[in-house]
Amino acid sequence: MAGIFQRSLRLRTALRHLSPQSPLSWTVTGRHTPLDLHCPFLPSTSWQFAVCSRKLHTGADRPSPASAPDRLPFSRITQEDLAFFRKILPGRAVTDPDLLESSNVDWLKSVKGSSELLLRPQTTEEVSQILKYCNSRNLAVNPQGGNTGLVGGSVPVYDEIILSTALMNNILTFDSISGILTCQAGCVLENLSLYLEDRDYIMPLDLGAKGSCHIGGNVATNAGGLRLLRYGSLRGTVLGLEVVLADGRVLDCLATLRKDNTGYDLKQLFIGSEGTLGVITSVSILCPRKPKSVNVVFLGCETFEQLLKTFQLSRGMLGEILSAFEFLDSECMRLLNTHLKLRNPISDCPFYIVIETSGSDSTHDGEKLHNFLEEAMTSSLVTDGTVATEDSKIKALWSMRERVTEALTHDGFTYKYDISLPVERIYQLVTDMREHLGNRAKSVVGYGHVGDGNLHLNVTSPAKDPALLAAIEPFVYEWTASCNGSISAEHGLGLKKRNYIYYSKPSQAVALMGNIKAMLDPKGILNPYKTLPDDLK
Amino acid sequence: MAGIFQRSLRLRTALRHLSPQSPLSWTVTGRHTPLDLHCPFLPSTSWQFAVCSRKLHTGADRPSPASAPDRLPFSRITQEDLAFFRKILPGRAVTDPDLLESSNVDWLKSVKGSSELLLRPQTTEEVSQILKYCNSRNLAVNPQGGNTGLVGGSVPVYDEIILSTALMNNILTFDSISGILTCQAGCVLENLSLYLEDRDYIMPLDLGAKGSCHIGGNVATNAGGLRLLRYGSLRGTVLGLEVVLADGRVLDCLATLRKDNTGYDLKQLFIGSEGTLGVITSVSILCPRKPKSVNVVFLGCETFEQLLKTFQLSRGMLGEILSAFEFLDSECMRLLNTHLKLRNPISDCPFYIVIETSGSDSTHDGEKLHNFLEEAMTSSLVTDGTVATEDSKIKALWSMRERVTEALTHDGFTYKYDISLPVERIYQLVTDMREHLGNRAKSVVGYGHVGDGNLHLNVTSPAKDPALLAAIEPFVYEWTASCNGSISAEHGLGLKKRNYIYYSKPSQAVALMGNIKAMLDPKGILNPYKTLPDDLK
Repeated sequence: MAGIFQRSLRLRTALRHLSPQSPLSWTVTGRHTPLDLHCPFLPSTSWQFAVCSRKLHTGADRPSPASAPDRLPFSRITQEDLAFFRKILPGRAVTDPDLLESSNVDWLKSVKGSSELLLRPQTTEEVSQILKYCNSRNLAVNPQGGNTGLVGGSVPVYDEIILSTALMNNILTFDSISGILTCQAGCVLENLSLYLEDRDYIMPLDLGAKGSCHIGGNVATNAGGLRLLRYGSLRGTVLGLEVVLADGRVLDCLATLRKDNTGYDLKQLFIGSEGTLGVITSVSILCPRKPKSVNVVFLGCETFEQLLKTFQLSRGMLGEILSAFEFLDSECMRLLNTHLKLRNPISDCPFYIVIETSGSDSTHDGEKLHNFLEEAMTSSLVTDGTVATEDSKIKALWSMRERVTEALTHDGFTYKYDISLPVERIYQLVTDMREHLGNRAKSVVGYGHVGDGNLHLNVTSPAKDPALLAAIEPFVYEWTASCNGSISAEHGLGLKKRNYIYYSKPSQAVALMGNIKAMLDPKGILNPYKTLPDDLK
Repeated sequence: MAGIFQRSLRLRTALRHLSPQSPLSWTVTGRHTPLDLHCPFLPSTSWQFAVCSRKLHTGADRPSPASAPDRLPFSRITQEDLAFFRKILPGRAVTDPDLLESSNVDWLKSVKGSSELLLRPQTTEEVSQILKYCNSRNLAVNPQGGNTGLVGGSVPVYDEIILSTALMNNILTFDSISGILTCQAGCVLENLSLYLEDRDYIMPLDLGAKGSCHIGGNVATNAGGLRLLRYGSLRGTVLGLEVVLADGRVLDCLATLRKDNTGYDLKQLFIGSEGTLGVITSVSILCPRKPKSVNVVFLGCETFEQLLKTFQLSRGMLGEILSAFEFLDSECMRLLNTHLKLRNPISDCPFYIVIETSGSDSTHDGEKLHNFLEEAMTSSLVTDGTVATEDSKIKALWSMRERVTEALTHDGFTYKYDISLPVERIYQLVTDMREHLGNRAKSVVGYGHVGDGNLHLNVTSPAKDPALLAAIEPFVYEWTASCNGSISAEHGLGLKKRNYIYYSKPSQAVALMGNIKAMLDPKGILNPYKTLPDDLK
């Protein structure tokens, strides 16, 4: 008992800071991302491709679901094609291999294409001309935003033409009454955030990749991020899209209306379609007001059951001000300590929670948080914790969650899984995986958005290990499917996971997806080899 | 100045009730509905149908966009068909004309079909058998939930078989950690609300029709309702659907996952498709926690500009606890006074606002509301107001907004429009319509969900008046289109508005909708004559 009180002394001390008499200072720190994008030097992941006519990546010999299919019979670029593109995009049709390099390789440096042409349109009309031409010539096209994806969806597999939205970066309109923003698809998320914050608004989503990712790519991948718990998914916040279809037709559904029930909601087809049904050129999105008060809390729990009860308690007592609820396990903490020398801000616990609140009154929010923490401690749901009271501490607390990915890179070769499960089952997968792998793995860690049921399960080994991979897969996917979970909560399917779709979707549904693809892109030129499984092609 | 202070005396008095020392009592009153469903005896609306082989409704002779097209060459029911249905649905294949009557007529009693068969399946399998058979026999089917729609979308036009979800009313699962509910499509919204409230949750939507409407119908029409401002649309809160397609195939996308990016989000096709792409049989939906504290405020503004500024102020100062922001004009108040003898709770003002807050701490919420009202008054944005401090007063305040529709029915024949506009333009349409109609109309009133940009524009006359209708339309639709508004914010298109779709959607988009319809329902048996314009058929 004394131990508990000693451990909770820090928390009790922190609680005193939460009384209405001493409101917390607040800073919104950089956010973690479910896409784990803090490791520019992450070694190659497990995704290897079979050797084919164009060598993509040295790797495993055995065929695997992640292997790229043979190159489809698209046309190859001719001088005539180049002349056309140079004419419509003067100075913006890039063929220099050195300049093309970064666009041919994904952020994880795990997948490499062989595109020989990068196009950089500035307008919807130019995108329309490009696709109309490519469709008529049967040239494959790889739409590319910030190239921050983790499933190989944003880079070519072979010689697809890269269509970059990098120069389509204008904000079009902003309505300060309704909070509705319209912008071109190539706007970088962070730039949009800065624009809005000057006007007392924020974007409804936030990712660690915000300094690079484009809003068009976010929408195309239905990116989630930290704020989903509070502001919901892009399927609810995106109000309109302008999309160029495979044949160059421009589909103008760029409405700025909160409510519109005139016919089928076509934009929903393109949200999350990963660039395979059309190229998003403009986005209309509903933005929330900037919160006046933000607090961050770091807590420790003895068991995952207590963690879940803490979550329920937070939903009841923090309610409308709760804006993030993240977790990491003790293995994550060990890696943070070992590889990054980050000190645990509280005592060692099996589980850690990061809670963020966002509200319009710092006194009220401080009071709610105080009451919540008091209850959590009194009920022994939480055994230790600390509350951020000033900027540097807030940043430090968030970094315990945000830098897990970085720590993993120092632990060895990492196999990464982004899984959706019923909330109460999230950690069981980690436990079962540990038991299943035994000594074969170096580390098995779990962390993620517990509030959304989204687990990041990572397994490390000293080096790439095909035997280990064979033990992990399909075990992880079968386990996920047995709970009716999703084998890709946020990352999408891209190239790497396309053939695993059947673990999470019935054949009937996948067949219907194929019908939709055939309807919108009969020649299949848009982002081929991605998202849909090979047996549909 | 003295006048202002006198008028504001009531508000100042009310403000004292909002100090933290005297928390407000709270009751969640019955809610208004954007579907205006408080008038079971509403006289026929303006929607008249041309006389055809089956007389639907006596009315105008001139063809209008609302006229029903000629009956399509579907099969007619034979004795053999009846024998089949009686076999698979013993006792639940209704042919008695008296029993069929209410299912053939819409809630407004404005549209009447001539169906001779009402089917009442209990399971998805039965729905599948029905559609498989109907598809093979080329028999048209009218899916029907609670039959509370206002655009003639829920009743047959001719002799379509009515497929009712009334007996598919089981709750399947509820996860009290995640708040995810799954249920059959025929569950009545109010029953779901009662079930959830016992478990400290609420439905993410609420409508005046909740005592009758089915969740399947809500989803099929992408119903909005009062809580949209706070909890967002069904496109964000519905997590999964089970749908039976036109040919009887069962599409199982009944996921209960907050995040799932495995392929295209097929359920979005069916949300808002008004029963024309498939029959929804089960729904999975994310439910919010029940708020511990609810307050209602009734305010008066001199101008619509001040009303909009009040809205902005409320968003900044009430922020996360704001759950409804409704308006009505002085004409609405006049009708409430005249026809229903409802007394204005404050002084006469050109505009009135109803604000509701929902939060997890009544003291905090009371304080926020106090500060907001103080600021609104000091800035002269608001000239008068009152705050509900006990149940009966809260109900009385809400009724000033909820009973506008009822008051209109006593004013004469009502032409009803449900329009989405940029928020700052909402009332201009009302003003312009008044000027445009001059003496031709008896009353022209405006009210609605100003926060969502959703206007309910109603025009009355002593009796049905084709000349008045000709003055209203297409003026109202052209005005709406000129602002890139929506000619149907929530009600959907159904039968009545299907041909107006081009005012809000470009041809390209409508053509694509036609492609989707052809892909999913090649024979067009599902809810024919609805949603899509006649020139696509």
